[in-house]
Order: sequence, then C-alpha cells, then structure tokens
Amino acid sequence: MATLVLLRHGESDWNAKGLFTGWVDVSLSAKGEEEARRGGRLLTEAGVLPDVVHTSLLVRAIQTAQLALGTAGLAWLPVKRSWRLNERHYGALQGKNKAQTREEFGEEQFMLWRRSYDTPPPPIADDDEFSQAGDARYAWLPDELQPRTECLKDVVDRMLPYWYDEIVPDLAAGRTVLVAAHGNSLRALVKHLDGISDADIAGLNIPTGIPLVYDLDADYKPVKSTYLDPDAAKAAIEAVANQGR
Amino acid sequence: MATLVLLRHGESDWNAKGLFTGWVDVSLSAKGEEEARRGGRLLTEAGVLPDVVHTSLLVRAIQTAQLALGTAGLAWLPVKRSWRLNERHYGALQGKNKAQTREEFGEEQFMLWRRSYDTPPPPIADDDEFSQAGDARYAWLPDELQPRTECLKDVVDRMLPYWYDEIVPDLAAGRTVLVAAHGNSLRALVKHLDGISDADIAGLNIPTGIPLVYDLDADYKPVKSTYLDPDAAKAAIEAVANQGR
Repeated sequence: MATLVLLRHGESDWNAKGLFTGWVDVSLSAKGEEEARRGGRLLTEAGVLPDVVHTSLLVRAIQTAQLALGTAGLAWLPVKRSWRLNERHYGALQGKNKAQTREEFGEEQFMLWRRSYDTPPPPIADDDEFSQAGDARYAWLPDELQPRTECLKDVVDRMLPYWYDEIVPDLAAGRTVLVAAHGNSLRALVKHLDGISDADIAGLNIPTGIPLVYDLDADYKPVKSTYLDPDAAKAAIEAVANQGR
Repeated sequence: MATLVLLRHGESDWNAKGLFTGWVDVSLSAKGEEEARRGGRLLTEAGVLPDVVHTSLLVRAIQTAQLALGTAGLAWLPVKRSWRLNERHYGALQGKNKAQTREEFGEEQFMLWRRSYDTPPPPIADDDEFSQAGDARYAWLPDELQPRTECLKDVVDRMLPYWYDEIVPDLAAGRTVLVAAHGNSLRALVKHLDGISDADIAGLNIPTGIPLVYDLDADYKPVKSTYLDPDAAKAAIEAVANQGR
C-alpha cells in the first residue's frame, strides 16, 4: 500500500489582498509561512514522514514544502519540481481583484471563471505585466505548452502526465510521497484519484496547510483519505468557499 | 565552456560557538543566513545565473542554497542532494569545542586532525549523542559507506563519484551548476579541479558565502576561477585560518 500526502500552500501576499494569482510568482505571507509549519507539525504528530517531495515551480509551494519539511526535520529530502504542478493559469484575470471582478462581470460570469470545469478566462496578453512570457523558468517549454489561460480541465490534462510519469514511480518504489502544490492543481489530482465528475468537482475545496493523506491500493486508487486535522480542514473548506464575497 | 559555481555555507550556530560540527545537522545562524543572501546578490550582480543546484544532505548547505537562490529569484531551480557533498565527518571530535580540543591535545595533534590530508580523528561511537547512526537520511547506505570519521582524503574519495556521475553530466548538458556545500567537501572538489597536491591542500581555505566561479574547458578543467567579491574573499580566508585560536 502506497501513501500519498497532498499539501496546499497557505496564504500568499496576494491571497491576503484578494487578487487572482495563478502563475504570478507571489511569496507566502507570514500567516502562510505559519500554515506551512503547522503542516509540518501535523505530519510529525501523525508519524507520516515523506521520503520524497514534489513541488510546482512557484515559490509559494516551494516555500511551503521547505517550511513544512524543515519543521518535520526532513529538509534534506529529495525534491522534484515541475510546471505541471503549477496553479491554474488565470489568464487575463491574473493580478485583478476578486471582489472587483465579481462586481464588474457579475456573479454568474465570476463563478463560471472560478468554478466551471471547461470555461477558461480570457487569455492574458504576452505584454501584460502579469504574463509569464519571458519568464526564464518556462523558456524551454515549446510555445504550444505555455499556457495563457486555463480552465480546470486544462490543468487536469497537463497535470496527469506528471502524476503517471514522476509521482506514481516514486509510489511504486515504496516511497511516501508529499506533493506541495496549489488549490487547482491539487483539485485536478483529487478529481482523478477520487473519480469525481466534471460537474461535482466545482463543489470541492481543498483547505490550505493541512496535509491530506491518501492510502492507495496497488492500482494507485484511494483506499482511504484523511485530513490530519479534520476539524480545521472543515472550517478552512468553508472559508475558501467564501473567497471573493 | 561550462560554468561551475561553488558556494560554502555561512556561519552556523556551532561555528559561532566554536564547536566541531562535521555531520551534525546544525542550522545557519542569523549571520549565516545573511551570508547566503549576500551570495545570492553577488550572483545576480555578476549575472551568473545557475540552471541547477546540488547540495549536501545537511540543512546549513540546503538553507544556503535556498536563501541564495531565493534572493536571486531562482527558488524554482531543479535541485539534487547527496551525502557525498556532506562536510567531512569529524569523528569523535563532533560536538567538541575547538579551543578546548587544542588545549587538551596540543597544537600539533589539533592541526593534524584539522589539516592533515590522511589522518582522521578517532572514530565516533555509534551511541555517541553526536553520531549519525540511526539518522533516517543515511539509513539506506550500506554500513561500509557510513563514515564514523574522515580525513580529507576520505572526503575526496567519496565526493569524486558524485562529481563525475551527477555534476559533470549537468555541465556537459550546458547547464551552469551551483554546488552549495561545506568547507571540506568544497576543498576536496577544488583540490581535484586545480590539481592541488596532498601537501599543499592544507593551506587552502574557502571563504563562506562568496560564490567561487569556475570557467571549465571541454575536459572540465579550470580555465579561470574568480571569487565574485575578491576583497571580501581574501579577508574571509584569513579569518577561517584563525579559527580555534
């Protein structure tokens, strides 16, 4: 039986300001740093000690992994990073205020962009100050792979090859795997693992900073999944659902 | 032409206290953290931007890489870690005060342990509080590879396979490589690169926190090497030579 641990990064400077972030590379706030350390304490207390960590290429997930693992005395773990674990690219919404966007475009359009499975926001222009065109970390990606906007379906499509090619082999080798990533790249993975329908995934929120531990069977399907602090997870899920209100 | 950057971690909590550290996993002091950030600023100012980073399994080198690369906007670089880049194992001296050791054993024995090429300190007992027996990060190493003491020659012998098998392939692929490590694992590498004799290596000190940039030829031999802050490097080399006095 393999063990997979998912950890969503905590509050970033832009979460605190209510801005759409996506691929914009914003750091954790002090609160987000403390959430990451709490995640490390929860891992230690539960005796769930990863053997390897996978992160996105965004510093808020990288910092979360470093702080959580540092707290757990595991700063030395092997680490792999990939753009395929990045947050959903929010297109032209990146850098925009969530409440203002809701006001400007209306509740229906706002929720469609935030929660529909297959409707991406308008693409971002390459010369937009919040575009990732020209960012060195993605320079080697062929143009057709560089997102300018994404819906959750797009995230599932680009995340799954990493699951199959990099994470599953670690699980197959008997390693406990930590994935430190983002609300939507983790929703994409949970959708796959739990077989959630395109319609039902809209209602799924993953709380920040609370490790979600999956016991997987020989076919890498969930036998059981547990938040390491179930009460805090429940409260946090409700808070995420209220973002932008 | 390939570019290799060596970065020795800055002051740790035990450097500050004058204790032999070796494989004991001590964190950077606040001063050491600032040294790492300065290393990152020096890289940025010189336009030397690594494509990949290699670290030891010790947090003071891991933190140095994270802080330097974070400062340079490169937190997202791919990273590889290995025990082969660890500091020299100081054997039974680990956890002992340098000045007291000098007093107890005399100048000659002290300098032999610190600087001779092939005389290791007495081995550490597995039940010593500063032994690494039982440390999870080394648990998979066959017993004959787990050091209980090392001289610099031992460090050269266990470091070189990593140079050839992991670092050289990155250089061969055209990547600028950062190695964030320790006084003695970097002395071992510099001894190899610069062809320094067993006798002359005793006189070589590598300053902390100042990137040392090597331009290498097609055979991975140095064409040129430069400290990014030569004046600070000179002053720091003299300070290291005075440790324990």
